[in-house]
Amino acid sequence: MTRPGGTPTPADLVITGCTALVHDDQEEAGFVEDASIVVRGGVIETVTGGGLPRPDAVEHIDGRGQVAMPGLINCHTHAPMVALRGVAEDLPAEEWFNDHIWSIESNLTAKDVELGARLACAEMILGGVTCFADHYFSMDAVAAVVAESGLRAHLGEAFFSSQGPEGRERSLEFALRHRGAADGRITTALAPHAPYTVDDADLAATAELARDHGLPVHLHASESRAQTETSLARHGVTPIEVLERTGLLHHDVLIAHGTGIVERDLPVLRDAPGRIAVATAPRGYLKFAWGPTPVRALREIGVPVGLATDGAASNNSLDVWESMALTSLVQKSAEGDPRWLTSRQALHHATLQSARAVGLGERIGSLAPGRPADIVLVDLSGPHTQPVHDLAATLVHSARSADVRTTVVDGRVLMRDRRLLTIDLPATVAELGQRLPALLDRSHGRRIQAYDT
Amino acid sequence: MTRPGGTPTPADLVITGCTALVHDDQEEAGFVEDASIVVRGGVIETVTGGGLPRPDAVEHIDGRGQVAMPGLINCHTHAPMVALRGVAEDLPAEEWFNDHIWSIESNLTAKDVELGARLACAEMILGGVTCFADHYFSMDAVAAVVAESGLRAHLGEAFFSSQGPEGRERSLEFALRHRGAADGRITTALAPHAPYTVDDADLAATAELARDHGLPVHLHASESRAQTETSLARHGVTPIEVLERTGLLHHDVLIAHGTGIVERDLPVLRDAPGRIAVATAPRGYLKFAWGPTPVRALREIGVPVGLATDGAASNNSLDVWESMALTSLVQKSAEGDPRWLTSRQALHHATLQSARAVGLGERIGSLAPGRPADIVLVDLSGPHTQPVHDLAATLVHSARSADVRTTVVDGRVLMRDRRLLTIDLPATVAELGQRLPALLDRSHGRRIQAYDT
Repeated sequence: MTRPGGTPTPADLVITGCTALVHDDQEEAGFVEDASIVVRGGVIETVTGGGLPRPDAVEHIDGRGQVAMPGLINCHTHAPMVALRGVAEDLPAEEWFNDHIWSIESNLTAKDVELGARLACAEMILGGVTCFADHYFSMDAVAAVVAESGLRAHLGEAFFSSQGPEGRERSLEFALRHRGAADGRITTALAPHAPYTVDDADLAATAELARDHGLPVHLHASESRAQTETSLARHGVTPIEVLERTGLLHHDVLIAHGTGIVERDLPVLRDAPGRIAVATAPRGYLKFAWGPTPVRALREIGVPVGLATDGAASNNSLDVWESMALTSLVQKSAEGDPRWLTSRQALHHATLQSARAVGLGERIGSLAPGRPADIVLVDLSGPHTQPVHDLAATLVHSARSADVRTTVVDGRVLMRDRRLLTIDLPATVAELGQRLPALLDRSHGRRIQAYDT
Repeated sequence: MTRPGGTPTPADLVITGCTALVHDDQEEAGFVEDASIVVRGGVIETVTGGGLPRPDAVEHIDGRGQVAMPGLINCHTHAPMVALRGVAEDLPAEEWFNDHIWSIESNLTAKDVELGARLACAEMILGGVTCFADHYFSMDAVAAVVAESGLRAHLGEAFFSSQGPEGRERSLEFALRHRGAADGRITTALAPHAPYTVDDADLAATAELARDHGLPVHLHASESRAQTETSLARHGVTPIEVLERTGLLHHDVLIAHGTGIVERDLPVLRDAPGRIAVATAPRGYLKFAWGPTPVRALREIGVPVGLATDGAASNNSLDVWESMALTSLVQKSAEGDPRWLTSRQALHHATLQSARAVGLGERIGSLAPGRPADIVLVDLSGPHTQPVHDLAATLVHSARSADVRTTVVDGRVLMRDRRLLTIDLPATVAELGQRLPALLDRSHGRRIQAYDT
């Protein structure tokens, strides 16, 4: 690009001297040494190796000793639930929901959601997350925090059938009003909670709304094997079959968890007319003593599996880096096969598959010309990441979220050298802290919903 | 303590304003708010709460916003193997040993071991580890690095029967020569490699040496279920029964891994005359697709289980913090019980049980008057550790090794505000890097040992 008169216009941002993770035509990860990444108008213009002369740019980041990779994508979370991190520990899911979380959540205000979301965005930016899929309540507040923080997000206003048709209507209204907001960084989804809290009629109505408005759907389904068994006992069908018979699988559906997906679900998912993806959050499954998402079986039928953390009230963190490592480790263990889910496969889940899971497969998940500049720089100078014999393994199995030094979304630097540039963390922690006594009060005996799968 | 004349002598070190993790008479963890920790002569003099006036001290650390806890103990590692971090990935154990690690290790020199150990100590100090149990070769070099780095260590020179009696004799000679070295920070053990590489006669001879010299034994045993099955098929006994019949269980034995410990081993371990402990390194077991150490069964028979990382060539890190979290998560999953292995139990493994595992149960593992001042300060101001509803859960499930800001051993500050004070990391990485081509050469076709359980 040139100015009138022929002088090249400076780029907005250039990152030099880094090693850049790129994908080839077969989606294999490779590494470009001594790479320069030029960003203009929020978009990656070039990724070139070999230490070319530094182009003129408004902002320059020296990436020596660091790896540039696509920002991590948290494919399923409830960001504001960081406010409840550690509030109910070491419990089975049913007790955790009924006696603690859904009781506390009946106190939730939009202000709590705003502060929780802001704290969560701080955590995610520090951990190299550039995009998150959120499924919660008072989502206007989350959208506002996304706009101010600079992150990218895929948002849905959750609903239960117990809320009556208003729940579903609110979810639609949110999805339509925020679609494309925050300079296009916000995409939206319809967000029924789950087949065990949203009845078939409501799910079928959601499928119609998805069709009429061209909206994807983000919901919990087949979260655990126990849910699948209960569904079979009560209704004669699995939760995935419920999605099919209510017409949802004709549309783009992001299924959270899917650890209860069984053999008979596989052809259903494989033959679905819509684009189906699953988000896996392995830490919480270990903690609840659930099994793992059947990643290998899903791969065989071509269903992308994105990485996620779920909410911090169960997962205790929004650390997608940990989800990447744990997905590799747990899958090896579950399949009894140390050769399966290699570091390169884990990186594929973290990048391209996660981008597809949140419906942004054509846009994010890869450092390639024309894509939005959602980039993180990872410092490998720490002793725990030295020496480097296999860079993919170093990234997946030795590096940690704390090694991310710089986080960039749409070409805007949100964290530089571990300093948050868009969020006032101490003020957020202090203000949230003042609200916690009211938030945690359970003396009212109410619940937002009963957990009874 | 007072100077002649009645003026109190200044303490060597005082940490103020922190929250201190302490244990009560029943070994329950508790937290002292606004605590002051006074250290004199390398020993904790007092731990007092309530923000008393700061005592006069040579060195002062402001611990506000931080938790002081006993330094982590890595109960089984091969520190110098950090040089091979990532060199052989996504492989079954047999192939990993035979085609890669034991081939590369035939090139190993004392200089490689020294540099690897120094890099490893840097990683461990940064990760809040104050003591490690190492089982490797050229251990004089490791002992020298322990002395210079300021860490505490429990060291053993490994041997195979394939080395002839010289291996065992070298192990004894090392253990006697270094016992009590580095101002008492080094303790030693006899270190036969494993029942599948050390024959019964050699194990029996080791048991006699343990008796004659009052030395503990540190070895691999029952590493995987496959090893137990092979041992039963070939010898009619389990690896644990091999330890019993060779007399080793009459002495203090630290067993690395024990994922192959089976029902019939439990009474053997329970009734052993010696003090038996197991070190668990859960990350590597997931990676090799081994099962977990049977922590619950070991607890029921009173065998302490310490936390470990194994070597970084399999584990990819020396992150004991991660071992703590994974032990909790994997045990919940393996037992199908989310109520089991709570955060407080995980902290018990990380502190008192780990101290017992390395034979230092009367000295380290607790912040108590009269114990050596092996202390780490953990910063909880990051968004990923806020808010704090349950401090034990925050420590185990939200905090990370990178949150350790200060590491103290025997009252000496080895890291302050994440700055290493006793190790030159860039020089170590650079010097090790120069030696890697020679270390990695496998053209000779040699192996130090065959893996054939």
